[in-house]
Amino acid sequence: MIIVLKPEATAETAREILDRISEKGLKPLHMPGSERVVLGALGDERVLAELALDSHPMVESLKPILAPYKLVSRELHPHDTVVRFGKTAIGGRGFSVIAGPCAVETRDQMRNTARFAKAAGAHGLRAGAFKPRTSPYAFQGHGVEGLKILRETGDEFGLPVVTEVMESADVGVVAEYADALQIGARNMQNYSLLKEVGRARKPVVLKRGMAAKVEDLLLAAEYLLAEGNEQVILCERGIRTFETATRNTLDLNAIPYIKQKTHLPVLVDPSHGTGVRDFVIPMALAAAACGADGILVEMHENPAVAWSDGAQSLYPDGFEQLMAALRPIAEAVGREIA
Amino acid sequence: MIIVLKPEATAETAREILDRISEKGLKPLHMPGSERVVLGALGDERVLAELALDSHPMVESLKPILAPYKLVSRELHPHDTVVRFGKTAIGGRGFSVIAGPCAVETRDQMRNTARFAKAAGAHGLRAGAFKPRTSPYAFQGHGVEGLKILRETGDEFGLPVVTEVMESADVGVVAEYADALQIGARNMQNYSLLKEVGRARKPVVLKRGMAAKVEDLLLAAEYLLAEGNEQVILCERGIRTFETATRNTLDLNAIPYIKQKTHLPVLVDPSHGTGVRDFVIPMALAAAACGADGILVEMHENPAVAWSDGAQSLYPDGFEQLMAALRPIAEAVGREIA
Amino acid sequence: MIIVLKPEATAETAREILDRISEKGLKPLHMPGSERVVLGALGDERVLAELALDSHPMVESLKPILAPYKLVSRELHPHDTVVRFGKTAIGGRGFSVIAGPCAVETRDQMRNTARFAKAAGAHGLRAGAFKPRTSPYAFQGHGVEGLKILRETGDEFGLPVVTEVMESADVGVVAEYADALQIGARNMQNYSLLKEVGRARKPVVLKRGMAAKVEDLLLAAEYLLAEGNEQVILCERGIRTFETATRNTLDLNAIPYIKQKTHLPVLVDPSHGTGVRDFVIPMALAAAACGADGILVEMHENPAVAWSDGAQSLYPDGFEQLMAALRPIAEAVGREIA
Amino acid sequence: MIIVLKPEATAETAREILDRISEKGLKPLHMPGSERVVLGALGDERVLAELALDSHPMVESLKPILAPYKLVSRELHPHDTVVRFGKTAIGGRGFSVIAGPCAVETRDQMRNTARFAKAAGAHGLRAGAFKPRTSPYAFQGHGVEGLKILRETGDEFGLPVVTEVMESADVGVVAEYADALQIGARNMQNYSLLKEVGRARKPVVLKRGMAAKVEDLLLAAEYLLAEGNEQVILCERGIRTFETATRNTLDLNAIPYIKQKTHLPVLVDPSHGTGVRDFVIPMALAAAACGADGILVEMHENPAVAWSDGAQSLYPDGFEQLMAALRPIAEAVGREIA
Repeated sequence: MIIVLKPEATAETAREILDRISEKGLKPLHMPGSERVVLGALGDERVLAELALDSHPMVESLKPILAPYKLVSRELHPHDTVVRFGKTAIGGRGFSVIAGPCAVETRDQMRNTARFAKAAGAHGLRAGAFKPRTSPYAFQGHGVEGLKILRETGDEFGLPVVTEVMESADVGVVAEYADALQIGARNMQNYSLLKEVGRARKPVVLKRGMAAKVEDLLLAAEYLLAEGNEQVILCERGIRTFETATRNTLDLNAIPYIKQKTHLPVLVDPSHGTGVRDFVIPMALAAAACGADGILVEMHENPAVAWSDGAQSLYPDGFEQLMAALRPIAEAVGREIA
Repeated sequence: MIIVLKPEATAETAREILDRISEKGLKPLHMPGSERVVLGALGDERVLAELALDSHPMVESLKPILAPYKLVSRELHPHDTVVRFGKTAIGGRGFSVIAGPCAVETRDQMRNTARFAKAAGAHGLRAGAFKPRTSPYAFQGHGVEGLKILRETGDEFGLPVVTEVMESADVGVVAEYADALQIGARNMQNYSLLKEVGRARKPVVLKRGMAAKVEDLLLAAEYLLAEGNEQVILCERGIRTFETATRNTLDLNAIPYIKQKTHLPVLVDPSHGTGVRDFVIPMALAAAACGADGILVEMHENPAVAWSDGAQSLYPDGFEQLMAALRPIAEAVGREIA
Repeated sequence: MIIVLKPEATAETAREILDRISEKGLKPLHMPGSERVVLGALGDERVLAELALDSHPMVESLKPILAPYKLVSRELHPHDTVVRFGKTAIGGRGFSVIAGPCAVETRDQMRNTARFAKAAGAHGLRAGAFKPRTSPYAFQGHGVEGLKILRETGDEFGLPVVTEVMESADVGVVAEYADALQIGARNMQNYSLLKEVGRARKPVVLKRGMAAKVEDLLLAAEYLLAEGNEQVILCERGIRTFETATRNTLDLNAIPYIKQKTHLPVLVDPSHGTGVRDFVIPMALAAAACGADGILVEMHENPAVAWSDGAQSLYPDGFEQLMAALRPIAEAVGREIA
Repeated sequence: MIIVLKPEATAETAREILDRISEKGLKPLHMPGSERVVLGALGDERVLAELALDSHPMVESLKPILAPYKLVSRELHPHDTVVRFGKTAIGGRGFSVIAGPCAVETRDQMRNTARFAKAAGAHGLRAGAFKPRTSPYAFQGHGVEGLKILRETGDEFGLPVVTEVMESADVGVVAEYADALQIGARNMQNYSLLKEVGRARKPVVLKRGMAAKVEDLLLAAEYLLAEGNEQVILCERGIRTFETATRNTLDLNAIPYIKQKTHLPVLVDPSHGTGVRDFVIPMALAAAACGADGILVEMHENPAVAWSDGAQSLYPDGFEQLMAALRPIAEAVGREIA
């Protein structure tokens, strides 16, 4: 940590802060300059949080040297983590495609959609039973009944299933029915939920929040690992910017950044990332090209009558085109689609 | 709702959609143009959600005419809502100041801080017992023990207390100790929590999310009112933008917008809105000048040793200056600080 | 254009506006609803600008139906435009790679860099002679002397050259030396410059502004076409968002959107789009995968001593890796790299 | 400047960089830690730009200690600058109101508007003769003819006038007719224009760009001062964010930040900052409350027929209300409206 003092800070203030740094077991450094005095603290910066140096009236700014996350960092854990998902795996050489409708609507809708997904080569099935909706007047999901339909559909077609859990109290029941728990973008910083899911023995798909820096996403993942759950899959799904041509701005820069900083696998959700059906295939290809470990994509047997997110859901034939287009891209970057 | 069809849409498609609009009890409109066919649906647009017209492959865009929220709207409820908060009230002619530290640290810290707040004229006390923190290694709050200290301190100094509730399971215990429940920015779209708090019989302070449009904030409030809780106070606390000179960008434009659209009172949090102690007073004055109903502000008996958010907390003498500076501004806009 | 009136608007106001619409030769529409009166104007919406309906005190909102640009629109001009660039072309089946240093530094630096670029397969050479720099204390470019070096280097290695023009007065001299004129992100809405470049008979690379919506970019291009210059190449180079892990947020969603809306070719600049050398190759691949017509990429014979933008410039061997990695991706999406 | 090396950097690399720092006349510092080696360079950081350390492959990150601007900084020039504007002044104890229409339309429109402005107490007149417009089909201003009308109107009513200059070639003619030159938001980083205006002997109003951090604004001002023009007035006019309820997000946080960092006066433009007439008065009051030196506000004799920006222009009676409401706020913060 580098600590820049205000121009009016006295030598005494500098000494006082250096002493507090030493007491925490860190190596203190004193760098007096002509315009500012700069102090340093070398070692595990996390213990400095207790000093609350940002609160000190004579401190102008703090500049961390080390990343604030540890367990998710590639520095401590250089090899890629591969997360099991039912009988398949996410991360490693494979490129995974998890497809399905926004929401579980009916048993028939799920079975028809899953049949198409499986036939085209999907590796997993997604659908929401608990739905976070901006408006209280929108369809909120079928809850446990939806979980059951999802489980049965997955079993029938041999597809592992992932679905969102929206609150701590539901972690148990969702974990009972799903192969992986999804934490949605709106709940990425719902720390109570993160802790509860961190204690579950199930893989997690953690979606990036709409206003979350990648570093915030990694810190949210750190909550999961800190509770003992290392089966974490990150997911880039678009951030909120001034651009309104698309529902969100898919931040694919985040993919090589994430691959550099962490050992965790990362998916891309081109459906929420664009909000527009016609852009889902090109952005899925871009995701594969820049190093993502897979995609989470919305498809529906008939999006024209989907209860939610139909505008961004692929038709079955669109999904087939996607799978066909993905294979040569994945191959070009040294991945395979099983 | 205005429905713009794609250029290639047929007359049959238009008829089909118009029929579906009629079946929902809305008045359908047909506007054939040279370059696009435009359809209209007049009436309660909420029922159109079920048609999922945005999913229709021949629909280019949907343009809502009416606001998606109802209960929070000033159109249905033209008069300002005044929310009780202990023995005081928020909204109406008064301008309210709720002050206190970021977190409950110790009984002494709370008593000293509250004493200063009360002496300078604060109307309420704030402090966190459950703390949402970006890093799992940061102080997470004292929980129920913190709630007890907060309650005792409020009672001792005659100040109503507000504190954050982070998950549904805690709503009961927080409601037991606090005069108002706060939903934090990170949980603004935690719909499970919104519903549970909507069922509590306690006033709520709902903070705007970092990536939330004002309309999203109003829809989150609609969740609370839809569950029967009308004692809702909104709070602008800054949004996330590209600007890094301040912790957040305080969006004061939101204040006149909110006052125009809704009957609910609105506070401003200049502490999180700036992240910088020196900017708290000017932005609190700006908040009062543009029509806010009060402020939620961080102060601490000694910010230099605060466990969290010290950099944005006022010293006791800063808080006195704030109160002194607020009075003539409030008066200038026809408000009074009791 | 759909015109939503305020709830308090009278029937007379509606009639008055409908009359003004008719006078402009557009088809007026009247849609009285229970909560709002909605009016429509069908036809060329551009003539409505003169009515300044957004200024009307009884107008709540205007909702355009048609895109505000015309000449750049694919609706009027469905086939892809191919822009000549020296002896090569941008757009069509080929995928173009234009490479070079941020700035012309010395004759040797340019020759060495161009030699590497040419050997690895680049189709064009880029380098700045007039440099827009955030700080007045940073290197501002060699001006005309730099243009001469660029021209000579391009001729020596058989590479067409593109370079930035920063003001109207320089359009002539830049057009004399360069095969294509670049309008930088900071000048995307410098309308004087757009008009002057629109009158030049040279191809233009128009970079998206940091705060520009794609629609703003298309309107800026419309300025060029409206002046008679149809040789316009768009370039996505990242937008400014809250994310600080990368210099900008590369908005690849814009590529399929641009390809859908306009006939103009579009490049991606993964160097400015990321600001980080290690992310340039993955994002260049992503650009190719999602349908871009080429890339504009920074490389330098030795980035460690580059006078500007070294952190995002590829080394020569990195550029070779890029070209090798691009070929199978381009092929996978049906493009070829000549 | 603090230089963090990559974990794999050798001792030799550190020595090499320290030597280069010494050669530039700065004081080098070596801070070897367990996880990273950190170097420091104390002194005038501007000379470090020539070392291009950000290009070095073994440099992980650079952390500046000092602000990148000098002449605009309050550290070198602690006292507030007061800028003359005709016979009035901007900065100091007064609070200035510059009002007028978006564009010079006709002589009558200007005279009527100026008469109202003067009568209500405005200190200056604004109106555009050269108009930057997003669409090439929108009214682009009357040019020199507009300048003449503006000048005559200002003279008739005893109001100094400010108007936008859009390109270097026009600086002379605009300076001939106007008392102050405005550089618009879209041209804030048009460095050719900044330099030319920096050489003019006229006061300048420099508007913040839509994607400009406050630091970028200060660096743009530094261009003006570096050319010898110290008569610079900054202007906050809203930035582009995800919020669409208002045209821009007025960043009032920038006002106390600017007052802390620089000696230059700063205005607020609540018209562009909101885009909505009803919000102009509250945001103008907020600007006065948080320490702005004045406002730049759009008013029109009849906004309902304004050729541009009518939706955000005040009616004459609205302007009177604004002036009446401003006086007590200005007084409350120790300013006076002459």
